Formats: sequence, C-alpha cells, structure tokens
Amino acid sequence: MTVPLTNTAPSPAHDSSGEISSASDGGVGLVQTQYRTLFAPPHPLVLECGQQIGPITVAYETYGELSPERDNALFVCHALTGDAHLAGRHSADDRKPGWWDKFVGPGRGLDPTKYFIICANVLGGCQGTTGPISINPETGKPYGLALPVLTVGDMVTVHQELVRSLGIEKLLAVIGGSLGGMQALEWVAKFPDAMHAVICLAAAANLSAQGIAFNAVGRRAIMVDPNFQDGDYYSADGPKKYGEEGPRYGLALARMIAHITYLSEVSIERKFGRRLQNSDHLAYELQKETEFQIESYLHYQGKRFIERFDANSYLYLIRAMDYFDMAAKYGSLEQALGQTNARFLITSYNTDWLFPSSQSREIVAALVKTGRHVSYLELSSVFGHDSFLLEIEQLEELVIPFLSETLRQSRKH
Amino acid sequence: MTVPLTNTAPSPAHDSSGEISSASDGGVGLVQTQYRTLFAPPHPLVLECGQQIGPITVAYETYGELSPERDNALFVCHALTGDAHLAGRHSADDRKPGWWDKFVGPGRGLDPTKYFIICANVLGGCQGTTGPISINPETGKPYGLALPVLTVGDMVTVHQELVRSLGIEKLLAVIGGSLGGMQALEWVAKFPDAMHAVICLAAAANLSAQGIAFNAVGRRAIMVDPNFQDGDYYSADGPKKYGEEGPRYGLALARMIAHITYLSEVSIERKFGRRLQNSDHLAYELQKETEFQIESYLHYQGKRFIERFDANSYLYLIRAMDYFDMAAKYGSLEQALGQTNARFLITSYNTDWLFPSSQSREIVAALVKTGRHVSYLELSSVFGHDSFLLEIEQLEELVIPFLSETLRQSRKH
Repeated sequence: MTVPLTNTAPSPAHDSSGEISSASDGGVGLVQTQYRTLFAPPHPLVLECGQQIGPITVAYETYGELSPERDNALFVCHALTGDAHLAGRHSADDRKPGWWDKFVGPGRGLDPTKYFIICANVLGGCQGTTGPISINPETGKPYGLALPVLTVGDMVTVHQELVRSLGIEKLLAVIGGSLGGMQALEWVAKFPDAMHAVICLAAAANLSAQGIAFNAVGRRAIMVDPNFQDGDYYSADGPKKYGEEGPRYGLALARMIAHITYLSEVSIERKFGRRLQNSDHLAYELQKETEFQIESYLHYQGKRFIERFDANSYLYLIRAMDYFDMAAKYGSLEQALGQTNARFLITSYNTDWLFPSSQSREIVAALVKTGRHVSYLELSSVFGHDSFLLEIEQLEELVIPFLSETLRQSRKH
Repeated sequence: MTVPLTNTAPSPAHDSSGEISSASDGGVGLVQTQYRTLFAPPHPLVLECGQQIGPITVAYETYGELSPERDNALFVCHALTGDAHLAGRHSADDRKPGWWDKFVGPGRGLDPTKYFIICANVLGGCQGTTGPISINPETGKPYGLALPVLTVGDMVTVHQELVRSLGIEKLLAVIGGSLGGMQALEWVAKFPDAMHAVICLAAAANLSAQGIAFNAVGRRAIMVDPNFQDGDYYSADGPKKYGEEGPRYGLALARMIAHITYLSEVSIERKFGRRLQNSDHLAYELQKETEFQIESYLHYQGKRFIERFDANSYLYLIRAMDYFDMAAKYGSLEQALGQTNARFLITSYNTDWLFPSSQSREIVAALVKTGRHVSYLELSSVFGHDSFLLEIEQLEELVIPFLSETLRQSRKH
C-alpha cells in the first residue's frame, strides 16, 4: 500500500515558508481535497440498519507527513455541519480558511510538522463524501431519501476504512468536538485497538432528550417546507448549487434554531443584547424580521447555511445524532469504553447547555470504573457549545502536551 | 357605575356547595365569560406606537364578590397563550377547567370567598378581546395585520380601563407569571397608584436576547408558511375555527420551539429521556417524526395549540414581549418601579432558563434601591419556566399570607 503524498509541504521549522507562508497566517497554507473510493463491489458496506451501500466516495484532506513508522497520524472528526476542509485554503484567493484553521499549523494544537493530520467528510455529508446528493449507482440519479438511515457507527466504519486504506495500522489519536466527539467515542468503542488516544470535546455518549427535541423541530421545519417534496427536490439534470433548490426556508429555520443552542445565554447577551439593528427606536412593524440585532444575525446565519448545505444531508446527520446512544448499543458505557487501552482527554464547557458537563462526567465515570486512563476538565468559556471551536489557546495548552506524551508512550512500546 | 354580578356564587365557607360543588373539585364551579366594550368613539385608545384603535371589546371572567368597600379585587394577568378563563368550567360537561384552576378556589392561593378575582384576555389575543381576528369596524372584515403593533403597555392600559369600568378604584393586587408578570410590572410602572400589591412570577423587566431569538424563529416559521399569506388567511365569510385555516404548520412549529423553552433540561430528561414512542428498537426511518417520545409529545403540543390559537395573534403577542423593556421605556428600572407604594412579591425558579433568576434579581435590586417593599424568593422546582403554573402548593404558601397582609394593611389606612 502506498503512502499518499500530502497536500501541504509544511515547513520543517515553526517559521513559516513556502506554501505555508503564502497564506501569511502561520497556518497550513494551500491544501487540496482528495477523494478515495471504498466499499466498491463486491464489498459494500453493511450499515447498522441492516441495509448495504457501496461504492462509497470519501472526501478527505491531509496536513503534514506520515512518518516512516506511520505512527504519527491524527484523525479529526468534524461536527454536524463541518467537512474535510479542516485548515488552510484551497486557493490563494480563497475567502475563508478551513473550519478549525486557527488550531492547525506549526506550533499550534495540531502541528503538521509533527503529525500527519487527516480530516474527512462524514458518510451522509454533502461536501464530497457519499450522501443523499451523491449519485445512486443503481438509478443514475441522486440518492435523495433512498439512502438508508445512517448512524455514527457507520460514519466511523467508513473513516476507519479510509485510515486503513492510507496504510495506517493504528492512529495516534482521534479528535473531535460535538458530533465529532461522538464519532471519536464510537470509534474507540467499535475499534478499541485503532488508536492510542481519544480527544473528546463538548460531546456526550448519547444525545439528550432536549437535543432530540431541538432536532425534531429542525426536522419538522425542513419536512413541512413545500419545496422539500419528500427529499426529491434535485433537478432532473443533477443537483444545483446549494441554496438554489429544495427547502430553503425550512433548512434556514432549522439552522436558526440550532444556532441558538450553540450560543450561551451570556454570549448572546454580550454580543447582541437587546440592541436594535438599524435604528435607535422601535419600528413598530409586526413583520419586520431585522428589528433586533439578534434577529438579523440569526437570519444571516440561516441564509449563509443554505448556501453551503444540503437539506437531505442535514436530515441524515441529525438523525444519526438522535440515534447515538452508546449505553443502549453496547449494553453499558463501561462495556463500550472499557475494551481499549487508549488514553482519553475529555473537555466540557461550563456554559454549554446543549452538551452539558454532566454528560462528559458520565463518560469519565465509565472510564474510571473500567480502569482506563482519562483526563477531564470542565473549561470556562462564555461561548457555550461553540467553545471547542473558539477557545483555541485554552485547548492548545491541553492538547499539545497530551499528544506529545501519547506519541512518546506509543514509541516506547 | 354598577358593580357587575359575579359569574360564580362561591360558598361562604370552605366546604363546597351549590355551583362550586357541581364541579366536584373544590374549585370555583361554573363560570361565564363576560364582555365589555371600552374605548368606543369618540374616545379610541391611543396606542404606544402612536396609532389609535377603538372600540375595544374585552373578554373577562370574575370569581367571588366585590366587597362593599370595593377593596378586595385581584387582577390576574395571563401569560402568552392564556386567556380570561382562569378557573372553573363553562359548562358541566366542559372537558377542561381554566388554565390556573388548581390555584383558584376556597382555601386556595386565590380565594373567591375572600377576594373578587378578575382575569381578562389581553389586547391582541384571540379569546374574545379585540385582536387581529376581530372585525375592523372600518372595513367590516377581520383586522388581520391591519391592527397596529401592540405593546405590554397597551395591554395594561386596556385592563386598567376595564377595572375602572367595573367600579374599582384601586386593586388589592395584580398577579401574573411570564408575560403576565411583565404586565404586572408594566401596570405598576404606568399606573403606580392602581394597586396595593404586585405579585410577579417567573418574569423579567425585559425579554432577554435569547428570548428574542426564540421568538424570531417562531415568527419566521409562521411567516414562511405559504398559508400565512401576509396574515390575510381568514376566509371571506369570517374566520373559521382555529386550526382550519392559516399557517398551521408554521404555528405548530412556533409552538414546538417555544414549548422546549418552557421545560427544563431535568424535566424533559425525567419525563421523556430517550424513550421510544411505540417500540423497543429504532425504526431506522428518516422521516419518522414519532420515533422518540419527546418528538411525539412536541408534535402533539403543536397540533393541540393550532386548534386553540390564531397565528396572527401569536405574532402580535410575541412582538409585544420582544418590545418589552422597562428600563428603555422609563429611563431606568428604578424610575419605572420607584413611583409606587405597592408591596411586591417576586418569585423565580431555579430551573427556568427562559426567564432566569438573574432577571428577577434585577427587578428586586431596583426596588430595594428605591426603598420599595419587596419580598423575593428563588424557588426550587424541576419544571423550568412552567413552574409558576405547576408548583401550586409552594406558591400558595407565599401568596395566601402575602395577600392577607396586603388586605390588612390596605384596610388600616
């Protein structure tokens, strides 16, 4: 098996040069998304629901170089609406870098001069990996809702196969926040020997009833949009650009609801409070949707989201979150997490009410009960659930030494 | 001015008899909604937005008898989707009693053998008081969105006029929770001499940014429903029964979102958790909206709501909540609340995240700073924002002596 060329040529030293410096931000510079086909006939993926799909295309990016011993690979699992584009830019005039760009780069939390970092779009996603917008080989048309229901376990199985296909026998660590943290937990439960460490941020071993409730409203908003058409909204000559067809209003609404749950009461109060958007006095217009700054902001978030996301894909991914329940699947949390020798770093955030600290403590308790090695911190931040994406320095202080020590220990054996 | 007959004939003793015993529940028995026309030409109500409306019909109910001194009147302000039907039943075969039935009755928190209790549907509502579904005298058709934007101040002005028209010079107390608590606060700010006491439960002196955010999503859900038609959805021969026309999906969605905010994380976890609705295993159906009990429950709540509420009315009332900001209106909370000699009883609930205790403490601080008489308690309950409706005994222990003492003091003067 061939070790693939990496997309980036990270500087050997921390001072940026070459492609990295071209971004002038100390990050990873220019990157390209790669694609790999897995589960091709006659070996389709048997999903946890019992149905099969294949072949599966996986979109992924890598940063840094795999060591000759192939022992320095990190896999980053993205959250609900993330994608393979973890860091860097796709072209020099790219407007925005990858979703966790500030955390990835020489000297940063995930350092491509030390590690070979992989990030892939999840199964069911809409940024290159097989999902409802992909062509169903049996019909020549997009799957739409003909794609079977997917689970976090299915996503992880696909990523594990990607890792294997890249010639990596054991990852140094799997890292993720939110749905990404759920994937990290599921990965170590399903493949206990697949990694030396797990870093799980702002996540949980199951989605809370409140989380299911918010997803239920988002799902409903999409499904009652007349343009949803039972998911069969792609035009006959192939899907259009996101935002140009399908349940735009419903998807934007779903995003608005979800976005509120990502913010904390404190951050929303500080950032917006009751400030008006364009005036110093009330408009007294019933239908005005941009009277308050927070309204404008939510509508803007909804609008931006539909330009980059597929509504069917959103339905698949939130359903996978709803279904995620490690104790139910493995008998108990102890059974799920007690089979591995991986080290765990777990963080929660004091203002995160979507994935509250109590849920991280359940994971920690199960790990301690089964004698696993776990470090847990409830971190302080005003940013609510989004903290894991925003509190970069706080996280680096933990992740950098945790990964170094994991690498040192793994090389001792 | 004539003191109207009361609807109920409460037993003089605590042991139920006559109409009260006919309900067999120790409550107020049979009641009838009454109607009064106010602000008739040439004296329309000048709204806070600057526009005028009139005449205004007010639907109200009363329980107990006004004392000869007219000094025992309590006014209960209902919350967002409440109405004038506070307690009792409209007929012997009425399926459900009024919305706070358990709190009203002989020996209960609000005792009709001692007090004359008034409850009225708010301006902009849809249960008998003038609102968007009422006939606009200028067109002969329902107002729809031709009704000007209404504020909590406007609601209170109408209620104050109703009280005056009933021959009551000064209320013993104004009582309300949530939007009802906002009305109570606004009432004492706008009419500082209109009552001897204010009881304000689970409320705030302004709606938080997070509250505006949830309202913005509910508003959007209604407005993008194709059946909303800019609020012009009433059939030509007059409005149909609720639930038979208009933005049903949008209104149900708005209710589902709001309903989540009324529950606490604890109560939703205890009541539903991750339990499935009809099965012991996952259905693996993407579009199934009743897989989890919490989903079924929310859909049921949405469905029930549209059968009893008008979507336009909902838009008016949530806008009034958005706009509510006493400090902005009166210069400061101290100026708003410092003009009265009324006594205050204020409660918040430890699991209420929609109107958190911090917002009640702001009110208390302003009252203390201006030398007012205020008692404040943060009460423990698992029920979140709904606690004020559900924790009856806890509330009675405070309200019964508070009202007795208020009556005693008011009669001393």
